[in-house]
Amino acid sequence: MSIIDKYNHIRKRTEDICSVLTTEDYVPQPVNFVSPPKWHLAHSSWFFEEFLLKKHLPDYKVYNEDFCFLFNSYYNTVGNRTFRAERGHITRPTVSEVYDYRNYIDMHMQLLLQLKDPQVHELVELGLNHEQQHQELLLTDIKYILGCNPLFPVYNENLEWENQENSQSGYISFPEGIYEIGFNGDGFSFDNEHGRHKVYLEPFEISQALVTNAEYLEFINAGGYQNFNYWHDEGWAWVNENHIEAPLHWHKIDKEWHMFTMAGLQKVNPDATVTHISFYEAWAYAEWKKMRLPTEFEWEAAAIQLDWGKRWEWTNSAYLPYPHFAKPEGAIGEYNGKFMVNQMVLRGASCATSKDHSRITYRNFFHANERWQFTGIRLAKR
Amino acid sequence: MSIIDKYNHIRKRTEDICSVLTTEDYVPQPVNFVSPPKWHLAHSSWFFEEFLLKKHLPDYKVYNEDFCFLFNSYYNTVGNRTFRAERGHITRPTVSEVYDYRNYIDMHMQLLLQLKDPQVHELVELGLNHEQQHQELLLTDIKYILGCNPLFPVYNENLEWENQENSQSGYISFPEGIYEIGFNGDGFSFDNEHGRHKVYLEPFEISQALVTNAEYLEFINAGGYQNFNYWHDEGWAWVNENHIEAPLHWHKIDKEWHMFTMAGLQKVNPDATVTHISFYEAWAYAEWKKMRLPTEFEWEAAAIQLDWGKRWEWTNSAYLPYPHFAKPEGAIGEYNGKFMVNQMVLRGASCATSKDHSRITYRNFFHANERWQFTGIRLAKR
Amino acid sequence: MSIIDKYNHIRKRTEDICSVLTTEDYVPQPVNFVSPPKWHLAHSSWFFEEFLLKKHLPDYKVYNEDFCFLFNSYYNTVGNRTFRAERGHITRPTVSEVYDYRNYIDMHMQLLLQLKDPQVHELVELGLNHEQQHQELLLTDIKYILGCNPLFPVYNENLEWENQENSQSGYISFPEGIYEIGFNGDGFSFDNEHGRHKVYLEPFEISQALVTNAEYLEFINAGGYQNFNYWHDEGWAWVNENHIEAPLHWHKIDKEWHMFTMAGLQKVNPDATVTHISFYEAWAYAEWKKMRLPTEFEWEAAAIQLDWGKRWEWTNSAYLPYPHFAKPEGAIGEYNGKFMVNQMVLRGASCATSKDHSRITYRNFFHANERWQFTGIRLAKR
Amino acid sequence: MSIIDKYNHIRKRTEDICSVLTTEDYVPQPVNFVSPPKWHLAHSSWFFEEFLLKKHLPDYKVYNEDFCFLFNSYYNTVGNRTFRAERGHITRPTVSEVYDYRNYIDMHMQLLLQLKDPQVHELVELGLNHEQQHQELLLTDIKYILGCNPLFPVYNENLEWENQENSQSGYISFPEGIYEIGFNGDGFSFDNEHGRHKVYLEPFEISQALVTNAEYLEFINAGGYQNFNYWHDEGWAWVNENHIEAPLHWHKIDKEWHMFTMAGLQKVNPDATVTHISFYEAWAYAEWKKMRLPTEFEWEAAAIQLDWGKRWEWTNSAYLPYPHFAKPEGAIGEYNGKFMVNQMVLRGASCATSKDHSRITYRNFFHANERWQFTGIRLAKR
Repeated sequence: MSIIDKYNHIRKRTEDICSVLTTEDYVPQPVNFVSPPKWHLAHSSWFFEEFLLKKHLPDYKVYNEDFCFLFNSYYNTVGNRTFRAERGHITRPTVSEVYDYRNYIDMHMQLLLQLKDPQVHELVELGLNHEQQHQELLLTDIKYILGCNPLFPVYNENLEWENQENSQSGYISFPEGIYEIGFNGDGFSFDNEHGRHKVYLEPFEISQALVTNAEYLEFINAGGYQNFNYWHDEGWAWVNENHIEAPLHWHKIDKEWHMFTMAGLQKVNPDATVTHISFYEAWAYAEWKKMRLPTEFEWEAAAIQLDWGKRWEWTNSAYLPYPHFAKPEGAIGEYNGKFMVNQMVLRGASCATSKDHSRITYRNFFHANERWQFTGIRLAKR
Repeated sequence: MSIIDKYNHIRKRTEDICSVLTTEDYVPQPVNFVSPPKWHLAHSSWFFEEFLLKKHLPDYKVYNEDFCFLFNSYYNTVGNRTFRAERGHITRPTVSEVYDYRNYIDMHMQLLLQLKDPQVHELVELGLNHEQQHQELLLTDIKYILGCNPLFPVYNENLEWENQENSQSGYISFPEGIYEIGFNGDGFSFDNEHGRHKVYLEPFEISQALVTNAEYLEFINAGGYQNFNYWHDEGWAWVNENHIEAPLHWHKIDKEWHMFTMAGLQKVNPDATVTHISFYEAWAYAEWKKMRLPTEFEWEAAAIQLDWGKRWEWTNSAYLPYPHFAKPEGAIGEYNGKFMVNQMVLRGASCATSKDHSRITYRNFFHANERWQFTGIRLAKR
Repeated sequence: MSIIDKYNHIRKRTEDICSVLTTEDYVPQPVNFVSPPKWHLAHSSWFFEEFLLKKHLPDYKVYNEDFCFLFNSYYNTVGNRTFRAERGHITRPTVSEVYDYRNYIDMHMQLLLQLKDPQVHELVELGLNHEQQHQELLLTDIKYILGCNPLFPVYNENLEWENQENSQSGYISFPEGIYEIGFNGDGFSFDNEHGRHKVYLEPFEISQALVTNAEYLEFINAGGYQNFNYWHDEGWAWVNENHIEAPLHWHKIDKEWHMFTMAGLQKVNPDATVTHISFYEAWAYAEWKKMRLPTEFEWEAAAIQLDWGKRWEWTNSAYLPYPHFAKPEGAIGEYNGKFMVNQMVLRGASCATSKDHSRITYRNFFHANERWQFTGIRLAKR
Repeated sequence: MSIIDKYNHIRKRTEDICSVLTTEDYVPQPVNFVSPPKWHLAHSSWFFEEFLLKKHLPDYKVYNEDFCFLFNSYYNTVGNRTFRAERGHITRPTVSEVYDYRNYIDMHMQLLLQLKDPQVHELVELGLNHEQQHQELLLTDIKYILGCNPLFPVYNENLEWENQENSQSGYISFPEGIYEIGFNGDGFSFDNEHGRHKVYLEPFEISQALVTNAEYLEFINAGGYQNFNYWHDEGWAWVNENHIEAPLHWHKIDKEWHMFTMAGLQKVNPDATVTHISFYEAWAYAEWKKMRLPTEFEWEAAAIQLDWGKRWEWTNSAYLPYPHFAKPEGAIGEYNGKFMVNQMVLRGASCATSKDHSRITYRNFFHANERWQFTGIRLAKR
């Protein structure tokens, strides 16, 4: 596929994701970690404007100077305005005006890509991967926004994401030894995967199946959320302060567990792989099973033999730089490095991840308490 | 005007107020005390459904049982659902669906009003006065929402509300004696005005003019916001914690004070009466002038001789029951009585108050720190 | 009694109150509204140093410049140091050093009082009344500090304050008319009582007895804390956010209500007058009884016929200036005026009030949620 | 040294540390992470009572059942009392009573140790190491408490801890390869060091000197605290929310940097090694120097050649279990494992660490924002 076709294909998918939304759905930011769909649409366009069009398209005219301020997630580099614009309270530009902005960017990106400037190719790839990351966030943010509504609106009644089941079972064993970790191929990868390096692993076993809802319900029914022994000290505080007693989007209605899905409210399907759990919950479940979560290195060593792509799988590795990690110069350098503290690595991909976006060396990361992504649990033992 | 005409006239004004909004403008709730315009539209309709149609229109069918939960501000009487629906995060029903709801209510209200049931007349009057209160809140909430936007969108470029000037000057004197306070006429009034009673007043003087922006700027420039001597202890804490240095909606741009108005961003007009100030600020200004705010009783005694209707005027009276106040039975009893603590009384009316809504005995009330209404300052002295 | 004798008598009582404390008891500040006993001892001495000795005793040498900063409650006038000293975290000066400071002040006050300067007499009276106010706070703060301890230490096993019973019953009626309100005698009074003025009262009845624990338990057992109908909107929020279900210092142990008293943990005595309730609770109780709290004017009009002095009695009057109120010049002007917002008036006196400190015109004031004083309920009706 | 002598020696040091404190100094808990000295004294005694005397000394009688509740840091296992006892607000038992408790425990520990039960030996070692950890916390907590006082009381005017200088300089290089990590000797070690295992390291260089105050001042003067480029995203938020502009205990007085030391307030000594910095600050400093912090594995590999023991040295390793980590059964299992999330590893020892307490494999851990320990910075590069 040509880069222009790829660009158009990926950009169109973002709009397809939003095609069933009402105008109202584009606006709210119910919690800090969720962004309004309107903001995602504008921000991913701003990314191309800021890092490609402004610098590489001759005579390019910025669409609207205010948009830079409103849709820049890199607030640090702005600094010259003190007005605090909360994303969910900004009603203008309207959704329709944001689509006009996207169209303007897309039209100029066609011109830029036709120049076939080899210098811009890498940045376009980065922009498209950035767009794909926002596609997944769009989907989980939309689910979160709809899930705040006691009417439980349906996003797409044909989506079966929450009902995905395992296709493998049992454990695979790996011997101790030196394993090569990190990106080493052609094609795109993020800076945080770079620095192919050796890691010494002790022998381990890893599950071929993810934990199911039925298995997780056993943990709930065994009082897992009421027994501090299974939890990190901070996890236990999180459970109690937030009155957590089940995965996100679960609701007990008439004594039966339901879950809010992209297809609306459903009874919990026991055979499906559990999702919307935090690192704290994944770790507590493993403690209760007298097993553990794999490290990201074990996961990567085993990945070729695993079936994955349903859930982002929590590892017991903190998000830290690889030995050869070096932050790129300029604003792009803020992409990954500055988040390398207090977060845990997730590996694999989820049902909401764009096709061709993830890979075996891909490192996703979230805070230990975050669970609005399609997260899941794969167990390991030694 | 017939009650049907009056109903239709007032209900239409609510929609007229919203006619220039984009769909997006109807959604956010930027702070707790502001409600989304969509919610105002639905809630004021729910009021007629709950207190009139359900009880008095034979065979009335509730439009949507969920709306009762979503648009009831009297959450206390609900209780049977634990889902916490934050007003600004609920995207469905859409704006268009809320207008359908209004139309349904209005259609059935025509039927009810045609029955000419004398029992419902008083409740219809209450519902229409309630609607008018929400019209003013709609206007100030819309201003607040647009004012959160660094693009400063214009609501109506022809509105001159922030630029209203005094038409009187000087002070009027009143002798000591017994004055009659409270509602005593025909027509509608709220329960908090009832209980006409005698109040003994010491001699006082009251200003015929409201404080202007020029006068208030003198206070600012004299360091009024930096000198604790002029402030209540809690007012001083409020100034410092919130870094207050001017009225709400004021912005210092290139060393010059501007204000966000219904007609967009403008330079502060020195001749206009100051607005969007809290009780704390009104009181501090009076201290600085070595004067004081009038009590609500002094205000009412003097009102017939005053020109008012530009700004809600802070009094130095706490919002408390009149001697004969008695709370009506049932949910309507929650209308006023339960708010009679920790709030201050404002008298008069503002540029945003519906015509024929206010009167000399009308008691408005807000917390000492609230200032998103069109508030103002009238001074008194003894 | 000579002024010197009076001075010595009152100053000694402060130390008597503390005589049973351990050194450790003098240190903590468990919540913002409680001050460490050590701080009270030092602050009440600082008051004499700042307003009397520094200005009126020739050649007086300040004991320690740092103490002015540490023990001045009027932080506003300091301003030249940014170090935030939380009262409960300051371990030095030690308790013993604070007593040395008191002795130094007392010794120099003897010298000053021997000068018989008529100018200082009024300030000495103010200082002694200030000291007496801190004596009551000392007692209730000590009770609060000991009440934080799961061991429930005894302050004085012979104190029967929480067990005081009514000596009167029934209601007294008063006709409508003009009543004179405010201080009008000889001797000391606070500025907030000044401005004797006329108030017109409607006819009212007032109870001769305070509400007892038995009566209050009926309210509890009738679900009073679970029924929003009896509460102010803000009171209801306070009940739910703080999980309030009984007066302060009450503990349900083995299904029976106990209370922490100055004499240690005891079973609730049904015949004693209820205490440690907030304004919200007093008001809710009155609503439940279909009665009301008196205004401070009704209370003052009736006071001569009432037996009072057991509990500070909540009125339904907000703490506001009397018509002729004028704030004194200088720092003394901060004594009362700046607190005249968002507080409710209490009348009478409590078991912990210093003898001869209160009077019929005395106006005490606390926030609607505060209840660590010995507060109580007297009902009124019309 | 016999185990009895060792026990007595270590226990005595705890009391020596407190010997210069006033009674008042033992009481406060100015922030959550600091405990009152009184609590440390009692808690470290409770540890011996709970895990040794109650289980292993025949006919042992618990000193006071309430103390278990008050001085147990493992609140999770208690559960049967709901009274929330904030450590800094509990004035009884008094300091003197806590020393009585210590004496009682020590007397019975003599009896237990004379039994020479081999089963208890390991637990005694754990108790003594636990005591030593609390000795260091006692010292840093005392410094924090005294440092809250604007009078800056001196702990010991002869202590030169903050003025310790480097004795080495330059960098040492290490080749890539497999290194053995984790405890592998005789004597005591914590469970978190166990599981000697292989780690593959890339080539690296590590500094022989720690960063000095002079070097750190360069960072400050270069605007390091005002430039987001050097900071983690969360570190930058921490700097701004807390208005951080220098290490903890630093005060700018008359334009010159001072620091509060165990010996009182002093001018910052440029040659001393910087201390009281958070992980965020250590990392930002390294970024500014275009270097990095070592991992805990690099540190351990190099440690034999380093001079350490002045400052706890931040590593860029998250606190996570070693491959063979297994949590002991019972309450002792809560010692380390449950803290293995969201914390960073520090290696070495500080001036405040008990002699013989630390070792090359020792893993200390704190949150990224914590800095009241004697922390420092050692740089690495590749």
